[in-house]
Amino acid sequence: MSEGRFITFEGIDGSGKSTQARLLAAFLKATGADIVLTREPGGSPGAEEIRRLLVEGAPDRWSAETEILLFTAARRDHLEKTIEPALARGATVISDRFADSTRVYQGAARGELRGLVDRLHDAVIAREPDLTFVIDMDPAEALRRGLARQSGEDRFEEMGEGFQERLRAGFNALATDHPERCYLINGARDPDEIAADIAHLTVNR
Amino acid sequence: MSEGRFITFEGIDGSGKSTQARLLAAFLKATGADIVLTREPGGSPGAEEIRRLLVEGAPDRWSAETEILLFTAARRDHLEKTIEPALARGATVISDRFADSTRVYQGAARGELRGLVDRLHDAVIAREPDLTFVIDMDPAEALRRGLARQSGEDRFEEMGEGFQERLRAGFNALATDHPERCYLINGARDPDEIAADIAHLTVNR
Repeated sequence: MSEGRFITFEGIDGSGKSTQARLLAAFLKATGADIVLTREPGGSPGAEEIRRLLVEGAPDRWSAETEILLFTAARRDHLEKTIEPALARGATVISDRFADSTRVYQGAARGELRGLVDRLHDAVIAREPDLTFVIDMDPAEALRRGLARQSGEDRFEEMGEGFQERLRAGFNALATDHPERCYLINGARDPDEIAADIAHLTVNR
Repeated sequence: MSEGRFITFEGIDGSGKSTQARLLAAFLKATGADIVLTREPGGSPGAEEIRRLLVEGAPDRWSAETEILLFTAARRDHLEKTIEPALARGATVISDRFADSTRVYQGAARGELRGLVDRLHDAVIAREPDLTFVIDMDPAEALRRGLARQSGEDRFEEMGEGFQERLRAGFNALATDHPERCYLINGARDPDEIAADIAHLTVNR
C-alpha cells in the first residue's frame, strides 16, 4: 500500500481556509476515500492541550522563542499521533495550518527568529505537505470576519491590520517560493466556487 | 551592580536535593542576601503550566522528542521571567534542577537524542550555572524515599531502579566533566551535615 497524501490549507485568519478544508474533506469522503481532517495548533489530544497554552491568556504571555518551542512540540505530537499513522495506512490527511503558518507568522512578527524556526523544523518535523492551498484574502475583510467569530482564540487577530498585511505578503511569498506544492487561491469569491477549484486541483494533480 | 549568582541542585529523585536547596536558601537569607529559590520544570507561571503537561498523565503520553521541546520551552520561560531578572538585580538564584537534569535524563533514556538536547540548549538557553551541587545517593534508597512522597508527580520515579542507576551514573559523570562549577556531594549523611558542607562551599568559593 502506498503512503497517503498530505494536504494543507494556509492563509490569514478569516481567509476561509477552515471552511475550504472542511469542504474538500467532505468532497473526498463522498468519493469513498479515507480522509482525516485535522488542524494546527492541535490535531492530537496532547497537541490540543499545548494549543490551549498558546491561544488562551494574554497575547504577550510567551516570548517569541518560547512560543516557537511550544508550536514545534505541538506539531511533533500531531505528526506522530495523527498525521503519520494516517498517511501510513494510505489515508488523505487535510490539515488546517501546518509548518508554513509558523514560518509566515514568525517572519511577520520577528524575522530574525526564522532561522530558529527552520532549524527546529529540520530537527524534529522534517516533513512537508504534498499539496498546499494558500487562500489569499484582503486583510481588512479577513480581520472583520475573524473578529466577528469571537472564538476566544483571537490572540493573533488582536495584533491588528498592519500585522495581517505582513502575514498576507508572507503567505503569498510562500506560494511563490514553493510552486512545486503550493496553489495560491483567490479567497474573495463565493465559497462554493473556490471549493470547486480546489476539488478540481486536488483530483487532477 | 554586578550580576548575581546562579546555583543549581541536581541529582536523582529522592536524593534530598530539594531539601538542600531549601536549606541553602534559608542559610543565605539569614545573612540578609537577596535569594530567589526556584525549581524545574516550572519556576514561572507559564513554565508551571507546561510542567503540568509534563508530569501529569501517562508516562508515555509524549515522545522523547516532544518532551525535550516542552522541557526547553518551560526552561526558556523560567529563564526569561524568573532567573534573568533576579540575576540582573544582583540576587542569588537557587534552582532545584536546571539544564543538567534534561541532559542526564535524556542520556539515560535515549542517548541518541542528546545532540538535540544540546542544540536546543545552545539555541535558546545558552546559560550555565555558576555553581552546581550534585547530590549523590544510592538509587534503591532514593527510589524508596521518592515513591514514599506520593507527590502525584512521579513519572520518572515509576521508571524503576535500573533507570535510576543510569541516572546516578549520568549525574556523577556530569560532576566529573564540569569540575569548574560542580561539587559532587555524598547525600547518604545527616541532612544538617550535608547542609553545612554546602553552605561552606557556597560562601568560600
